[in-house]
Amino acid sequence: MNTNPVQLFDVESSTFTYILVADDDRSAVIIDPVERHWERDLAHLKRLDLTLAYVLETHAHADHVTSAGKLREVTGAQAAVPSGCGITPAEVQLDDGDVICFGAGERIEVLHTPGHTAGSVSYLWRGNVFTGDTLLIDGCGRTDFQSGSSAALYDSVIGKLFALPDTTRVWPGHDYKGQSVSTIGWEKRHNARLANRSKAQFASLMAALDLPKPKLIDIAVPANQNLGLPHGA
Amino acid sequence: MNTNPVQLFDVESSTFTYILVADDDRSAVIIDPVERHWERDLAHLKRLDLTLAYVLETHAHADHVTSAGKLREVTGAQAAVPSGCGITPAEVQLDDGDVICFGAGERIEVLHTPGHTAGSVSYLWRGNVFTGDTLLIDGCGRTDFQSGSSAALYDSVIGKLFALPDTTRVWPGHDYKGQSVSTIGWEKRHNARLANRSKAQFASLMAALDLPKPKLIDIAVPANQNLGLPHGA
Repeated sequence: MNTNPVQLFDVESSTFTYILVADDDRSAVIIDPVERHWERDLAHLKRLDLTLAYVLETHAHADHVTSAGKLREVTGAQAAVPSGCGITPAEVQLDDGDVICFGAGERIEVLHTPGHTAGSVSYLWRGNVFTGDTLLIDGCGRTDFQSGSSAALYDSVIGKLFALPDTTRVWPGHDYKGQSVSTIGWEKRHNARLANRSKAQFASLMAALDLPKPKLIDIAVPANQNLGLPHGA
Repeated sequence: MNTNPVQLFDVESSTFTYILVADDDRSAVIIDPVERHWERDLAHLKRLDLTLAYVLETHAHADHVTSAGKLREVTGAQAAVPSGCGITPAEVQLDDGDVICFGAGERIEVLHTPGHTAGSVSYLWRGNVFTGDTLLIDGCGRTDFQSGSSAALYDSVIGKLFALPDTTRVWPGHDYKGQSVSTIGWEKRHNARLANRSKAQFASLMAALDLPKPKLIDIAVPANQNLGLPHGA
């Protein structure tokens, strides 16, 4: 059975944060929380009467700062992050195939899906995949900075994400059009950047995007590599 | 077990729309869809490969126009609405205690919860209650127009909604602070307007709010009583 996460949104950076609730209704994991919303997110955990087991990051974000460090501090949760992202203060460094366990028998599987950044991962839980900036609804993350690679992103999406069952729900790290959720089946057939496109065609398309440098990158990446806490903290 | 809905948001009116997905992953119901997002919502149904069984309204909204009529037209779903709201073109007029069935064994129970409007209802599904503008997170809907009544709202919340199990998840019709979900237990203990307050105290508080008339009320209510379709359509 397919259980949905609680999906939270940051209007400023169009970032989604997710709360995954264990079947026992007592234990939870949060993915990609946003710094300015740590009190809102903590309030959600309190209202739902949940104990936070882990704070997960999909990658070291360039467009917003995480609240992982803050949430870890106030809840006692552990931070679990992709091993290739330089997020050194986290308790758990995750590699492809690792499994995070929480609640009574909940399992989150780690898929290393490089491309947006070299360290990016996706998380698989109960028929849902949390794709960060690797696969977006009808799109994908950019691949032109932070060790990004269009070839790697193509292989991650085609080889790993599109190999999941068609009914797998796709919960992205961002959306800019009011969309919330998709499926692997739909993205395989319709994704504007990745469906029915060769690796070379995809590389040309991504190379031609010519996007401006993210405004916050020089602040956000070092901050996120420290779980959003001030350096020296 | 507690299955979450898919929660969608309209930034302009801060309205939540919900998609309830049957356990068989094929059939769905949508609650309080917003006119300007009918294509977005239809795209969600397509991406999740769902057949829409019903469009539900919690009441005749005064702050935005519904897409119920449009979604009914394009999907073949039935419109099911509270009987006391004057929404005459709907196929199903719902009363307290009615049950809406969809998918393989899904049951949505109708709770008549007057107060914001005389006809307002809440919907109960799998440990989730969709409260429209009756009960909001840490607040409640206004009671000063459209046959609203603070006494009725107090009785609805205290007598019906707060009588649900504490773990019941509360999914409101609006939120203005980035919040998404609460529980009956939390609202009973902490709701700023309704927790630990007598009916007389609540009536005084609501009478003192002195809110401006909703800008869209003279357009939205008649439109919503026609499922958001032009009159004569």
